[in-house]
Amino acid sequence: MTRTVIESKTKTVVIGFDEPFCVIGERINPSGRSKLNAELEAGDFSTVEKDALEQVACGAMVLDVNSGAVFKNKMAEDPRYADNNFVEPPLMRELVRRVQAITDVPLCIDSSVTGAIEAALEVVEGRPLINSTTGEDEKMEAILPLVAKYKLPVVAISNDETGISEDPDVRFEVARKIVQRAADHGIPAHDIVVDPLVMPVGAMATAGQQVFALVRRLREELGVNTTCGASNISFGLPHRHGVNAAFLPMAIGAGMTSAIMNPVRPVEMEAIRAANFLMNHDPNGGEWIRFSRILEQVEAGVPFAEASAAAAAAGGSGRRRRRA
Amino acid sequence: MTRTVIESKTKTVVIGFDEPFCVIGERINPSGRSKLNAELEAGDFSTVEKDALEQVACGAMVLDVNSGAVFKNKMAEDPRYADNNFVEPPLMRELVRRVQAITDVPLCIDSSVTGAIEAALEVVEGRPLINSTTGEDEKMEAILPLVAKYKLPVVAISNDETGISEDPDVRFEVARKIVQRAADHGIPAHDIVVDPLVMPVGAMATAGQQVFALVRRLREELGVNTTCGASNISFGLPHRHGVNAAFLPMAIGAGMTSAIMNPVRPVEMEAIRAANFLMNHDPNGGEWIRFSRILEQVEAGVPFAEASAAAAAAGGSGRRRRRA
Repeated sequence: MTRTVIESKTKTVVIGFDEPFCVIGERINPSGRSKLNAELEAGDFSTVEKDALEQVACGAMVLDVNSGAVFKNKMAEDPRYADNNFVEPPLMRELVRRVQAITDVPLCIDSSVTGAIEAALEVVEGRPLINSTTGEDEKMEAILPLVAKYKLPVVAISNDETGISEDPDVRFEVARKIVQRAADHGIPAHDIVVDPLVMPVGAMATAGQQVFALVRRLREELGVNTTCGASNISFGLPHRHGVNAAFLPMAIGAGMTSAIMNPVRPVEMEAIRAANFLMNHDPNGGEWIRFSRILEQVEAGVPFAEASAAAAAAGGSGRRRRRA
Repeated sequence: MTRTVIESKTKTVVIGFDEPFCVIGERINPSGRSKLNAELEAGDFSTVEKDALEQVACGAMVLDVNSGAVFKNKMAEDPRYADNNFVEPPLMRELVRRVQAITDVPLCIDSSVTGAIEAALEVVEGRPLINSTTGEDEKMEAILPLVAKYKLPVVAISNDETGISEDPDVRFEVARKIVQRAADHGIPAHDIVVDPLVMPVGAMATAGQQVFALVRRLREELGVNTTCGASNISFGLPHRHGVNAAFLPMAIGAGMTSAIMNPVRPVEMEAIRAANFLMNHDPNGGEWIRFSRILEQVEAGVPFAEASAAAAAAGGSGRRRRRA
């Protein structure tokens, strides 16, 4: 039984074949968010903190923390800021400190800079998920020893020096290579969460089928958990949420066990809650029924994040209240 | 390659593993519709005709025509009307005549009364789908010779004399028995569309997983197409459409090839259109993009049936216009 255990100081989340789908909140990421970049450059973490709380209220079970900021003003004054190896480690340290000070969910430490991941490991509590290695030799040799040293789980992205293959068999072989290399470092397959890479279905008609087939193979042949950047499937299309809301249940049905996504979207979260129920990962539908009350609020005009936060503040779940 | 061919006088619909999901409109059915029962009793077919047109506009590819009416007033005056063998054959004949006079889609002839199916066959044009046989010996011996004689496709429901089993393996064996008995009559597997029976997930936690597993087995081991009464999955639950809208893509991903359902529901139809796209059954996403324009109308407050009918009247599809 493949179980990837991720922990904060007080909370354990298991990504697994027999677990509810693990929603990893993607919002704490300055890539393409110029306002957030500017705030971080000014040492303002208010949006980060708001995003952390909102995502957890809406159902994120793990929070991705990405430190890939671009500090335009500082860069103009001091060329060292043009180097992410300089910018990210202290920023990541601060992001992790801030986020774990106000939430209790485990973190996913997300950076292309090894030093930023090392900086996170100095301050993070519990057992974070490391995001990520690829199948590139240089990347594997930077990340896998670190993952092995701290006995952590890691996201493995199915591309290598040759780029992202459009051929799903090539992407499978890259995943297999990473799993084998990880084993050489003593990292077990259950600590590897493979991202098979989701292509936009608007650009590649087989994109959906590729993912569903890859997820089944990764699970059956390599015994690994899987994740993806789910919204990529609908890139460039009208009514993207409708495509995402069909893709997620289909991926879950095929065996996908997590996604890095925006949980502050009721349509996608409704699809995941329903899919959990249909996979028998929501005993008696208790989560579905609680979620449907939040949807009623949303239909009455309350923003999803607000309705979710109110439900969480009110005890979150009838279950929690009954326990008190 | 399993292909179940259904035809009207002018149109062919193929249910198949490599075809878009076949939506069979369920609305023309007096069961539980007291107003429609009363209208039919009075010889008023206006709702039937409206339902036929609306369902086709919204995306029904086949129309189910069910004659199971209860004529309360006539029954009080003439005891023969208490017998469905008396009521249904002439009613079915009229329903088929009316529906095929105003639509061009193939029909699914739906009755528990063999005489009603025979009456339909006197007047129906093309190659209808017969709905249904079960695994009961008496039912098979009534329906299968008729199906064989006219070389028609038939829906096979996975229950028998012992009722509906909660054990999916038993339901699979009932389906196998029907396929074998049909073969004895010379009916090929590709003319059998098995309904594996969908239980409410609110009452049986494994209901979703059962269907997904059964659909895969029915396809791989028996080589048959499948259908279901999709909305049964969400019986008794709040926010049923959300459960249905996750169930349908998951069932399609598992290999389900048709459903008998209400196509006048935008949430479910959106889920099916998105799933077709993700299964590579919507080349270049043309259908999705056309459908998204209808969804824009719905978001602007236009009823779905009206927006769909307007789009159909305007040429229905850019494709059709380009061909003209």
